[in-house]
Amino acid sequence: MGNAYVGSPVPRREDARLLAGRGRFVGGLRLPDMVHAYVVRSPVAHARVTGYDLSAARAADGVVDVIGVRDASDLRLPCVSPGPGQRELSYPLLDDVVRYVGQPLAVVVAGTPAAARDAADLVTVDYDELPPAIGVEHAVDPDAPRLYPDWGTNVATDFEVGDPRGDCAAAAHDAAHVVDMTFRFGRASPYPLEPRAIVASYAEETLTIRASTQAPHHVRDHAADLFGLRYDRVRVISRETGGGFGAKEHLYPDEALVCLAAIRTGRPVRWSEEPADRLVATLPARAAVHRGILAMDADGRFVALYADVLADLGAHPANCGIAPAAVSATMLPGPYRFDRVGARVRGAVTTSTPTGSYRGFGQPEAAWTRERLIDEAARRAGIDPVELRLRNMIGPDELPYTTRTWQDYDSGDYPRVLRTLRDSVVAPHRDDGRRRGIGFACHVETTGMGPSMGMKAIGIQAGGFETAVVQMEPDASVVVSAGVVGIGQGIETALAQIAADHVGVALDDVRVVLGDTTTTPYSSIGSIASRALAVSGGALTRAAAQLRTRILEIAGHQLEVDPADLEIVDSTVRVKGTPQVARTLREIATAAWRGWDLPDGSTPGLLERVSYEPVAYTYACGAHAAAVAVDPATGAVEVEGYWLVNDSGVLVNPAIVAGQLRGAVAQGIGMALFEEIGYTPDGQPNASYDLPTTREVPDINVTTLETPSPRTPGGMKGVGEGGTVSSTAAVGNAVAAALPEIADRITDTPMTPYALWRLPRHASSPGQ
Amino acid sequence: MGNAYVGSPVPRREDARLLAGRGRFVGGLRLPDMVHAYVVRSPVAHARVTGYDLSAARAADGVVDVIGVRDASDLRLPCVSPGPGQRELSYPLLDDVVRYVGQPLAVVVAGTPAAARDAADLVTVDYDELPPAIGVEHAVDPDAPRLYPDWGTNVATDFEVGDPRGDCAAAAHDAAHVVDMTFRFGRASPYPLEPRAIVASYAEETLTIRASTQAPHHVRDHAADLFGLRYDRVRVISRETGGGFGAKEHLYPDEALVCLAAIRTGRPVRWSEEPADRLVATLPARAAVHRGILAMDADGRFVALYADVLADLGAHPANCGIAPAAVSATMLPGPYRFDRVGARVRGAVTTSTPTGSYRGFGQPEAAWTRERLIDEAARRAGIDPVELRLRNMIGPDELPYTTRTWQDYDSGDYPRVLRTLRDSVVAPHRDDGRRRGIGFACHVETTGMGPSMGMKAIGIQAGGFETAVVQMEPDASVVVSAGVVGIGQGIETALAQIAADHVGVALDDVRVVLGDTTTTPYSSIGSIASRALAVSGGALTRAAAQLRTRILEIAGHQLEVDPADLEIVDSTVRVKGTPQVARTLREIATAAWRGWDLPDGSTPGLLERVSYEPVAYTYACGAHAAAVAVDPATGAVEVEGYWLVNDSGVLVNPAIVAGQLRGAVAQGIGMALFEEIGYTPDGQPNASYDLPTTREVPDINVTTLETPSPRTPGGMKGVGEGGTVSSTAAVGNAVAAALPEIADRITDTPMTPYALWRLPRHASSPGQ
Repeated sequence: MGNAYVGSPVPRREDARLLAGRGRFVGGLRLPDMVHAYVVRSPVAHARVTGYDLSAARAADGVVDVIGVRDASDLRLPCVSPGPGQRELSYPLLDDVVRYVGQPLAVVVAGTPAAARDAADLVTVDYDELPPAIGVEHAVDPDAPRLYPDWGTNVATDFEVGDPRGDCAAAAHDAAHVVDMTFRFGRASPYPLEPRAIVASYAEETLTIRASTQAPHHVRDHAADLFGLRYDRVRVISRETGGGFGAKEHLYPDEALVCLAAIRTGRPVRWSEEPADRLVATLPARAAVHRGILAMDADGRFVALYADVLADLGAHPANCGIAPAAVSATMLPGPYRFDRVGARVRGAVTTSTPTGSYRGFGQPEAAWTRERLIDEAARRAGIDPVELRLRNMIGPDELPYTTRTWQDYDSGDYPRVLRTLRDSVVAPHRDDGRRRGIGFACHVETTGMGPSMGMKAIGIQAGGFETAVVQMEPDASVVVSAGVVGIGQGIETALAQIAADHVGVALDDVRVVLGDTTTTPYSSIGSIASRALAVSGGALTRAAAQLRTRILEIAGHQLEVDPADLEIVDSTVRVKGTPQVARTLREIATAAWRGWDLPDGSTPGLLERVSYEPVAYTYACGAHAAAVAVDPATGAVEVEGYWLVNDSGVLVNPAIVAGQLRGAVAQGIGMALFEEIGYTPDGQPNASYDLPTTREVPDINVTTLETPSPRTPGGMKGVGEGGTVSSTAAVGNAVAAALPEIADRITDTPMTPYALWRLPRHASSPGQ
Repeated sequence: MGNAYVGSPVPRREDARLLAGRGRFVGGLRLPDMVHAYVVRSPVAHARVTGYDLSAARAADGVVDVIGVRDASDLRLPCVSPGPGQRELSYPLLDDVVRYVGQPLAVVVAGTPAAARDAADLVTVDYDELPPAIGVEHAVDPDAPRLYPDWGTNVATDFEVGDPRGDCAAAAHDAAHVVDMTFRFGRASPYPLEPRAIVASYAEETLTIRASTQAPHHVRDHAADLFGLRYDRVRVISRETGGGFGAKEHLYPDEALVCLAAIRTGRPVRWSEEPADRLVATLPARAAVHRGILAMDADGRFVALYADVLADLGAHPANCGIAPAAVSATMLPGPYRFDRVGARVRGAVTTSTPTGSYRGFGQPEAAWTRERLIDEAARRAGIDPVELRLRNMIGPDELPYTTRTWQDYDSGDYPRVLRTLRDSVVAPHRDDGRRRGIGFACHVETTGMGPSMGMKAIGIQAGGFETAVVQMEPDASVVVSAGVVGIGQGIETALAQIAADHVGVALDDVRVVLGDTTTTPYSSIGSIASRALAVSGGALTRAAAQLRTRILEIAGHQLEVDPADLEIVDSTVRVKGTPQVARTLREIATAAWRGWDLPDGSTPGLLERVSYEPVAYTYACGAHAAAVAVDPATGAVEVEGYWLVNDSGVLVNPAIVAGQLRGAVAQGIGMALFEEIGYTPDGQPNASYDLPTTREVPDINVTTLETPSPRTPGGMKGVGEGGTVSSTAAVGNAVAAALPEIADRITDTPMTPYALWRLPRHASSPGQ
């Protein structure tokens, strides 16, 4: 490697355009002849549609097209990671049974957004209303209204992970302490800054989709399958995505309807999510109930951990369906040893918006369940919570380590992370009548999605590779392309750093091209699962190093010296110690592209294309601590201090990493204290949604350790999600520490003032 | 190979859009905010510009920008294949010395084409006129006006090829027959159906050039160098090129000025060639004078061939400059044995439009010189011209054969080609008072440009490779991309045929992507030199075969059988003899792109990228015969019959080949009989140009032989230019045969009625 961009907090190149208002967002796009779509959505939660009248809307001024259920019959999108025995493997774009408020009913396309919206009011739908099933615990009740009567149940999938329940129970039988608690996770929205938006056009037999998406190729493949188009006849462009957090990893039914409108009308069709629709139209997540049981012996040794994971799938299994709950189960053990770990995972349908993926993907829930159980066990046993954790933690000498849930941890020093955290915490002191507590939480995190033993054991096929292409043009400029996309995470900058170092050129000589299925390598998965840098950057690390080797080989041939004696300095390849014997990179690159004066057998050109397929996940880890003050009069929680230690392997850009960790903690705090899409008993969602602001998020003290991944070329691990995993649990443990008399009732998120205020104040269960 | 598309005359897929009026030509493009350019050109041939006034034009209604010489100072384009010692290696976009009528003086950019044109009339230029130098024989006169006074001559480059003149003269010394004739080739225009056109835009630091071009990467590289942009910041798109014939192989100064206007204004700028400007603005070709000497012994054995090649470079050496004349010299010997062959090559500047490349690239001139000399020798010796040719022809057992001019012929059966032709000719008979004659001509043709020994010996570095990328998408559709472009020659269809056969899929499953520097592999050369199919198709032959191998390997792994026992039938890989054991291509492709269930060590995905660099040219050959009737009263020549036999190796699409041969013969007839850009003594070109129509072109009887190239994967040779090479000479020999008494004066093209009519009618030189 020539330079040392990797590890340096170079400014994000994306910011030059983003901060200057030159972001290339889909919502700002205007194409000639463009028309605008408005999605008509169901106002009721559960009903049979008995009549549709689209004729008035079709006749309205400026209306170009109206798509109803009959126009989209048989158009269905697939569930990509169904659970074992899952009852539905796809879902329709439009359906004549309504199962949630906000379900698309029709799409109106008109010359202006206002005309489309006005005409939407002319769409009339007659409903035969059905009783809703709200709340997943209610939905699994045998008497609950059924969403799919022919199933005979609302449970779509039901399977076990790790040790069977019986084995866990047997191990717990003689345990000194058994903590058995039920946790409820509020339905949270990923809520990216940029709403979902799409412009679709169809010309020359090609469907072009400009979308705010995390996974252009995934969108391409699904759109092609949906409309029976050849894959190469669908082009997806994602030039800027203003946050995704899992919410933009697939093609939504409303987006697919916009594509259909483009095909039908032959005109570019633009749509972006209405603010009012956002909470019902973009998949929420987390919604789950865990009954968790932790068994511990008298010495404070963890004996068994079991969870009954019940996930609220919403109206149907959507793109990723049960997968987050499966990850909750397989990631349940965290950084600790247990004799037995198991979980039952069920996904049930409810008359609510289908649920999906959100930063952390089931891991924040797993951490909450495990870390709350540990704190409660510590409280009951009278052991310091940090001490109890350290006593049970997998040591660095035990790695690699395979959990009872088939996770094969690769590297890290979990105790060191926690000790480093403990040493950095400074408890705030103020005498204002509020109750104060500090909570800790630790996690191991799946990143850099490769083939997952855990998912495979369950029967969910997952994983995939990334390809990086690095090319030195004849003028020695370097172009990198990759299948992952920029979603605000700075991948464009990070990939440029890797390429510049490994090729040996200046950072400014590297351009990174992302987000266009016609010009970038295939990525079946996209920028999700904290994998973009680890997997795509891993591929690029190899590709860039290969390119450097080729450059030195050509220069060695032309200069008649051993390539090992050459170095690249200032865009020139020169002989070490004899710098006057040199060729400029441009001379070498031009010769390479002309095919002139190359070593025998050398392929002309300077292009390296490398696919890197991880052998498995690479596991990051972290420990978080929150200090809270709880107002006993109102139940209001203030996070007064926040500390975290994170180890995501080699850091390419520490400034970006710190920013990602802080943003993720803010989301974790939001989930802990405010964020929830609630439903009334008749299935109406709340219309407002409280996101944390700078008032609710304190300074976050970030410490990073760097244990290289032995699995990733370059040693990187993922970091995009890490900050969310322990943060909600740390706040929960801090609240429990502040309110020890009701600690065992600190089980649900969000811990809103009202939720805390209404908890019974007396101690409910004696410590065992 | 699975199918048999190669060798089959499948319909051209391009025609579906071209015949339906859906061709995607640049001239039809309209972009938002687009403005229009008009190029102000010099009305005088030679002058110093003493004053410029652009102010009135700049102030005119609707004018956005006016670019004068001071706005483009130091902007120069390179000569890509300069001759040895060539005096100029580049040329300016705008110059304050005018050296030809039509030289760009300024560019006016306005909101409409009419506004730009009107404002152009307001540009005033003061000239200090200088004497023109018209006609290359005049220009090399020591007294001729000098275009570049500091050169001390108008000769830009002067070098020898093959055997030295003295050796040739010595060999000829004792020859029984020495034919010494001087041939003049009219200045012809490639005159593609679609005029040159460009739309340039500059946004997000990227210059996008949509152009009608044969070589997008070449245009990209030169535009980037010109404006100091990184190569990856220039994108050239060429979606449809309505004929090129060599005239669209590079970036012209006027086109570069349109790019400059786009950079200056930030708006898309459109320009297309004015009909009136076409003959002065697009490089013409052929313009040359050959003094040729053929020496033959008493047995009719060719002893020596020498030519003094004097090329009219026009006002400056342009993109390819002297290279066509160098090819005339190195290809002089054709399919015959000579003890000695040599040539002197000079390029001189004249006050006329610079000359360039045109289908045949010097070879039609070489064929005319050689074949006219042979016919004249036959006439003088009283030997049948076909018999004389066969006597001296290189036999198939002599191949590979290296000429005295360093051409290393690879394969073919030249005598068989000529005998086949002779057997197919049927002399027309009509008694209408016209004189009738049949002429034959034979050639060997350089195709599939690889490194050329001949050019290298002269010091002109040439040759290059092509890369083909073939990808099977997860849905089993196949996408091919290549750096060559479609210019009406059907390459899109031919590449699809190769890919379909070698992968083993249906033709309709293959899409071919060409003509966009951001999505296609690099091609430093482009679609010129009859190389697109031989070189790019050679690369694709290998890439597609590799892809098939990979598919069978994966299928073998999954089906647990030896890949050798598998076949691909109907998009399914199945076990030979046990067709029920099978995987669909889609299943295999999806697994490959997911990285699931692949053989150990297998790269995920299904993409093959192969660069093929020819070891040398591959040589096609042909023989042509024309039957003419000459009206002695008017000098009018009618081509009454035409026959050709061509061997271009393996034919991918015989229908396309036949079409290309016929079109090229039409151009050869045009050059023989009508086409010439003439200049008045004061340097004014003629304003009209006679192209042959269906009235002037008879039915052309095409016979093809197929001697595979041993050099090209797939055995193909080029065919795009072949029809031009011998056709002009065949018509010339036919006219000479019709007018034997003045046969030795049939030396110049075009043989217009006036030119023939004014020839002295008496025999001028007795046969030796």
